[in-house]
This record gives sequence, C-alpha cells and structure tokens, in this order.
Amino acid sequence: MSKINKAACVGGGVIGGGWIARFLLAGIDVDVFDPHPEASRIVGEVIANAERAYAMLTGAPQPPRGKLTYCETLEEAVVDADWIQESVPERLDLKRKVLTEIDAACRPDALIGSSTSGLLPTDLQRDMRFPERLFVAHPYNPVYLLPLVEIVGGEKTSHGAIKVAMEKLPPIGMKGVHIAKEIEAFVGDRLLEALWREALWLIHDDICTVETLDDVIRYSFGLRWAQMGLFQTYRIAGGEAGMRHFLAQFGPALQWNWTKLMDVVDLDDALVEKIGQQSDEQADGLSIRELERIRDENLVGILQALKGGHGGKGWGAGKLLKDFEHTLWTASGSRKHPEDIARPLRLVEANVSPAWVDYNGHMTEHRYLQVFGDTSDALLRLIGVDFAYVERGHSYYTVETHIRHLGEAKLGQAIHSTCQLLSADEKRLHLFNTIHDTATGQAIATAEQMLLHVDAKAGKAALAPGEVLSKIKPISEVHAKLPIPDGVGRHVGQKR
Amino acid sequence: MSKINKAACVGGGVIGGGWIARFLLAGIDVDVFDPHPEASRIVGEVIANAERAYAMLTGAPQPPRGKLTYCETLEEAVVDADWIQESVPERLDLKRKVLTEIDAACRPDALIGSSTSGLLPTDLQRDMRFPERLFVAHPYNPVYLLPLVEIVGGEKTSHGAIKVAMEKLPPIGMKGVHIAKEIEAFVGDRLLEALWREALWLIHDDICTVETLDDVIRYSFGLRWAQMGLFQTYRIAGGEAGMRHFLAQFGPALQWNWTKLMDVVDLDDALVEKIGQQSDEQADGLSIRELERIRDENLVGILQALKGGHGGKGWGAGKLLKDFEHTLWTASGSRKHPEDIARPLRLVEANVSPAWVDYNGHMTEHRYLQVFGDTSDALLRLIGVDFAYVERGHSYYTVETHIRHLGEAKLGQAIHSTCQLLSADEKRLHLFNTIHDTATGQAIATAEQMLLHVDAKAGKAALAPGEVLSKIKPISEVHAKLPIPDGVGRHVGQKR
Repeated sequence: MSKINKAACVGGGVIGGGWIARFLLAGIDVDVFDPHPEASRIVGEVIANAERAYAMLTGAPQPPRGKLTYCETLEEAVVDADWIQESVPERLDLKRKVLTEIDAACRPDALIGSSTSGLLPTDLQRDMRFPERLFVAHPYNPVYLLPLVEIVGGEKTSHGAIKVAMEKLPPIGMKGVHIAKEIEAFVGDRLLEALWREALWLIHDDICTVETLDDVIRYSFGLRWAQMGLFQTYRIAGGEAGMRHFLAQFGPALQWNWTKLMDVVDLDDALVEKIGQQSDEQADGLSIRELERIRDENLVGILQALKGGHGGKGWGAGKLLKDFEHTLWTASGSRKHPEDIARPLRLVEANVSPAWVDYNGHMTEHRYLQVFGDTSDALLRLIGVDFAYVERGHSYYTVETHIRHLGEAKLGQAIHSTCQLLSADEKRLHLFNTIHDTATGQAIATAEQMLLHVDAKAGKAALAPGEVLSKIKPISEVHAKLPIPDGVGRHVGQKR
Repeated sequence: MSKINKAACVGGGVIGGGWIARFLLAGIDVDVFDPHPEASRIVGEVIANAERAYAMLTGAPQPPRGKLTYCETLEEAVVDADWIQESVPERLDLKRKVLTEIDAACRPDALIGSSTSGLLPTDLQRDMRFPERLFVAHPYNPVYLLPLVEIVGGEKTSHGAIKVAMEKLPPIGMKGVHIAKEIEAFVGDRLLEALWREALWLIHDDICTVETLDDVIRYSFGLRWAQMGLFQTYRIAGGEAGMRHFLAQFGPALQWNWTKLMDVVDLDDALVEKIGQQSDEQADGLSIRELERIRDENLVGILQALKGGHGGKGWGAGKLLKDFEHTLWTASGSRKHPEDIARPLRLVEANVSPAWVDYNGHMTEHRYLQVFGDTSDALLRLIGVDFAYVERGHSYYTVETHIRHLGEAKLGQAIHSTCQLLSADEKRLHLFNTIHDTATGQAIATAEQMLLHVDAKAGKAALAPGEVLSKIKPISEVHAKLPIPDGVGRHVGQKR
C-alpha cells in the first residue's frame, strides 16, 4: 500500500484542521502554514475532537502520533512534503496564487490536493509549473471521521497523479472517489446544493421549520443513506423487477411540480438503460432480496448505535427505539402469569443479528454476555427493579460472572435465555442463566452471576427493600426445589 | 398514550405491506383489502422481512402478534377499524374514489391516513362525508424500520384528527412529523426530488456512474444525516458563530451555477434571521461544542455498527473502518519490542465511548467482556494467530471466562488492559486479563479465561502448531515467574 511519508497543510481552519488530525493520527508528520492568528487554537480544538473520537472508534493500536510543526513561511511548510493539502478560503484568485506558490516551493514529485468545494482544477492549475500533480481532494466535515474524498483532475492533471492519490487515502482511513469529469461543485456539493436550495424555499414559504425539516431527513432517508446511496436504495424499492421498473414507475414524476428544479433531464430509453446497466454493475451479483436484507441489517445496527447516543439517553431515531422498548417492557409486565415461575424463567428471545457475529458467522464473545445481562435485567424488572426504581437511586450491580461456552450461536439463529434463581438474601441474588438454541432447546452457553443490591449514589451495597424482597420470595421458594444445574460453583480450568 | 385498537389497510404493496407489518408486530389486528392476485404473497414477504428485522432490533419482549385477515370487500376490511391506512397506486382519481368508499363504510370517528407521496389532502378529501378525519400519513420504505410519518392535513382536516394521529404513532415505534402547510410532495419528497433530478443530470452528463454517486453519499453526508439533518449539521459547521455565520458565508453560493436548480430564494436578512431563530430553538440549549461531540459520538456508533454489517464482513464506511483497523494491527506488530513481555502485556487502550455506557454513565457489563476479548485477540496476534492464520482454518476459542467487577469505568474515562499468561500447553492458553483506570493504574475489572486451540472446520480441539508454540514459549517462561494475581481460580460467590 502506498503511504504518505510527510504531509503539509496550507490553511488550518475547520477543514484544514481535519486534514491535519487525519495525518497526525495515522502517524504522519505534518508541517502547517496558516498566517491566521487563531490558527493554532482552531487546529488544536479539531485535533482534540479527533483524538476523542478515535479513542472511541477503535480498539486497534494507534501509531505514535505524527509530529505537528507550525511554520513561519509557506515555503518552509511544503519543502519536503510528499502530500500537500491546500485548504484556504474559497476564492479562485487566492487559491490559484497559493497553489502556484506551493508548486514553486515543493518537490516536483509531491502531490498537491485542493480542498475546494467547487472550483475547477483546470482553473486552479493554470499558472503552475508542474500542473500535472494538482487535483481536487474534496473532503467532508468532520474530516477526521467522514471518509469521503472526491478526487477530481483538471485538463493538465496526469492519470498517474490521480492513481497514486487514490492509493494514499486508505492508509489514513479515507475513501477516494474519482469523479470522471470536472464540473463546478463536483458530485457531492451539487447534490447538497440542490437539496439546500429546495430546503430554503420550504423554510421561506413556512411549509415547515428547520427542526421539522431536519427530523424529516434523520428519521427517514438519512438512515438509508448512511449505508446505501440513492440509486441502490431505489433499486431495492423497485422490487424484483429492479432499477428499470423503478425508473418506469417514477419517471413521469419528473414533469410534476415537486421541486423548484424544473430544468429536468429527458429520461429517455437510453438514459434508463444506462442507469439500469450501471446499477446492475453496482449490485455486484447481489439479488434484490440480498440487498434488502443487508439494508435492513444495517438499519438495525444504526438504530441500535443511535440508541446508545447522547450519553446513553438515545438520540434521534435511537431515542425513539429506546422509548419504544420501554413501552414493550411495560406492556410485557402486565402479561406475565404466575405459573411461569415454576421452572427456570424464559426471559429473552433473540435472533443472532449480523452486528453480533464475527466474520466466521459465529456470535461474538461479548454478545453472549449482552444476552445474559438482558436476562438479568428482565428478572430485575419482574421483581420491581425497573426504570423508575433505578431512577430513585437503587439498583442491582453484577459483581461476578462465570461463563461457559458449550456450543456456538450462528448468524440468524433463534436463541432464548432462561434464568434460575440459585439463592437470594437481603443483598444478593445468585443467578444461573442459560442461552438455548430455540430449535433444539440445547444449552449453548451458561452464566453464573452474583448481583449485589446497591445505593447507586453512595456507591455501596445496601439492603433491598421489602417490596423487592417480597417479589423475590415466591420465585426463590420454587426455584430452591429445582435441581442445581451442572456448572454451578466451578472455577476456570476446573477438571470435570 | 393513545393506542390503535384495530387497523385496516387498503392496498397491500410494499408500502401497504410495511404498514401491515408495523401494526401486526405492535400487537394490533389488521384487516386488509387488496384485490391484486399477488397481494398476500407480497405482504407475506414484507412481514417475513419485518419479523427478521425486529428479532435483531430489540431484545425487548414483543407483544403477541396481531391477527391478519384478508377481506373480500373494502367495506368488510374497514368497518370496525379505528385507523385506516390507504396505500393504493398514486393516481388522484383512484385514491379519491377509494378514500370516499372508505369514508362511507367506516365508523365516523375512525382516522383515515393516506400513504400518498405527493397528492394534496384537500384534493383527496373533496368527496368525503367526514373529511375532517382524513390526513396524509406518508411513510418511508422500509416502513417497518424507518420511523418517519409526515402528517399533513387538508383544508377540511380538523386539528383534533391531526393531534390524535400524532399520538397514535409512538406506540407503534413511529415518529409523526406535522407539516404545517399542504404542498405537493410535502417536505421529504421535495428534498428527494430536487436531489434526484440533479443526480439524473450527473449520470446523463457522464460526470460519474450511479455507483460513484452512491459512494459519494454514503461515505459522507449520508452518515451525517442519519443522526442530524441539514440545518443542525450546518449550524455546527458554522463553528462558534453558529447558523447566521454559516448563512453569511455560504449565501453567495446560491447565485453560482452549482445545480440546475436556478430558481433560488432571496436569502435576505429576514430569511437569515428566521433560520437563525429556528435553529436556536432546535438546538434546545446545546452549545456548538456539545452538538459537535454528540455528532461525533453518533458517527462513531454508526461506523462501528456498519463494521458489523454484511454478516460481519463490514459494509460501506464500516468495511473501510475494518480494513483500516487491519492496517493498524499489522503496523503495530512491527513496533513490538521484546522487553515488553517481561511484565503483564499492555495490549488495549480505549476511552469509554458513549455507545458503551448505560444511562447512568457507567460502562455496560458486556462492554467489559468486549475489552477483555479484544485483549485476548491482541495476545493471539502477538503469537501469530492473526487474520491470515484464522482464514487458514485454525483459531483459539474461549471456552470459559470468570469476570470480577472491582470498580466502575465511566463515560470518557481512559482505560487500558493487561494480559498475564498463567499457563500454556499444546492446546490451551490460560489468561488473566485486567482492565485498569489509566489515570491511577487501579484495576477496575479482571477476567480469567481459558482458550482452546481448534480446527474451526472440524469444530474440535486441535494441537497448536510449532510456529505458534514457539512464540508462546518466551512469554510463558517469563510470565511463569510473575506472582499469581489475586482472583485466580475463584468461583462465583466464593468467600475471600
């Protein structure tokens, strides 16, 4: 893989700072030139954000941070870099001047990328001595997290420079996308600009507020677009007949007054066929049904991720999911029958989600504990330790867990969990949870757990109140008569 | 919370089927009328997809499935429903006729929602006896997963009907958004149509292919829009000066030829101020810095979710993250020094991510096991059991784990893990992993684990090869001289 050895960044605002953070966190030294008096403060804030995000993003070992140097002159900054990224304000005269200075001062074989949102590379490279290595490398904010870089060459840009630029992006976690023809605003900003202009009309005409408009996006197609774009999404919507069917069905809408953008393309047979063929290639052999399932799995994963957002309170569609689950748990409480408690309690039902498996299709180790934890939570709700109880300041915390793996849960497999209450006293619950293959009933894994009743604010053990103990009692009385399961009281490595 | 008791669906294609699945899975009985010969097959497929998705989406107990009845006549289907959803093809004459029939046959107080993508409710309700309870309830495909419903009233629609409709959506996991004024295509489809028309031009003019265009969306702003919409995202991009600054900076671009949509609004002071005020209200007291962190946390969560997509292989930006981590692990292997092995190996560094905490801000139980699992994986890489090794068919599987919780890891806290090799033979690795508070070095949790070398295809234990054993030996020799950690060999509930 082709790597950047040393980077230079000319211009250090939010975008330039994002590039700087990308390079530094990938272990690449960066020399920066920006005469703005606040540059180092702004860049410092972006780097701090990036460090915080990367620490959460991956447990993979990060390389030693690159060295950051602020230079007094542009020449000093670019002289020994092999990738120079220009991110100065969006004015053709300014950008052209800065790029020409970079060109004069840097190595002839260094690559020069411009962060411009819309200027043409042919215009930018006009006065350069070695214009063949200038291209647009247009990123998206926040640059340290969003991977896209639109790579656009001008008339004088060489194929070689584009090729090498594309290769140097994956090692810093980015995705280069080569735009075949130069055009103002390229692809991303053209799409954004069309939508933005429509959005301004909607606000201007009081059709909705900015909050409503944002909600419309983030509770619907925004979720789709995080994982499949416009055309792949519509391919699926076309159903088994695919893209050509979709186009035939929705083509006439192009003539309707559905936007202010009325200079519409003629969706003739040639264009339909072109889109159909390109869509076939994009699908890469995946059927509509397979794409549909991948889409749904991704949406499930995104919704679950957003459920953990905003410090665990849930954000957007994830907050909605969290509230919905609360409703389900509450409703389920009223459906429980007393006869259910005479045997180990069947508490959680699940299908093994794609987000839960490793690349072998086996359920990942920590997801077993997630199901065991959900099982203990379900038992706690049965004895009155629900959301409201925890909010009043008390809870049960797990202090110890012993897991045995007896088999494997695989992608899509239906599983369920049971819970046997081994013993209980005023402070402790001793549980034995089992995950079963629902088809055969066989145990796949077991977890013996000790839970302690705590005063969460004081951070120490506390006696459980009478109202909870009275709900534990009938369960512990019948479960005391059940046989002690195989595996209880064992330590790791104990001989059978 | 206001609930739907019985639903009727008239029209059962992909959208109608999605509504049917939403209702059934929320425990609501649904009567369906659709004369199409394939209706029950199509609806059946959508329900099967929805069931599969819900099983993965939530471990919360789902209510007993509602009863699904296909009716011979429209009258029969709607007669005792309190929410009737019309999803017939998008033709005004057809929709108006069907809605008028529904209106005549159903209870006078039943709510009637139309799934139309763009027809005006005033036009739809023209011939109805009780037009005040007709509104547009426009959902997004797949209806069983995407929560948005645009609620739009016509001239004769009552405020009461809108209010009750909005209340009845959250109990089925949906988000109603009330669009203040009726307009063709409402809000979501107007935005989509503007972008769609621009996209068709880009394909027509060979600027890019549909795959490139989709990649531009899903590796950049699609990720942003899954969690914040257009305006909130731009508010952050404006930096500390916020929305008004952003508009001042990018306003002039409205005059540029950046889209074919050239009938642009006049972004005068009044419109800037209106957007600024609405954006302030939307932010709900969160500062730019807070919004920026929430955005980054959400993006991290989404990228991690997509890393698990496509059956664990990774999808889109998540696949890119997976490849990037692979690069990081490979690079880190070459940085390991022999002197590192004389004490418990320091292997994983992390900051506690918002996706890892419960609503108390404490790290969730199963995330401890995730860090322990990552620690064991890191040890395996050190002894040559890396991606390539596993792909050749052998691996180590965890058979047993004993976790002790000694403290709590909190949101944002820097933690790291260490691994002590207690013993090793030709098949087994006996490990003792510890998660530390990086600031103080104190142990927060420990995990004693037994790993077994396996032939993954045969699904049974196998001797580890010499090349692996020779890498284990130097570590096990020096670790054999370390003191045995407190906690080894204990079972759950064992007295100190």
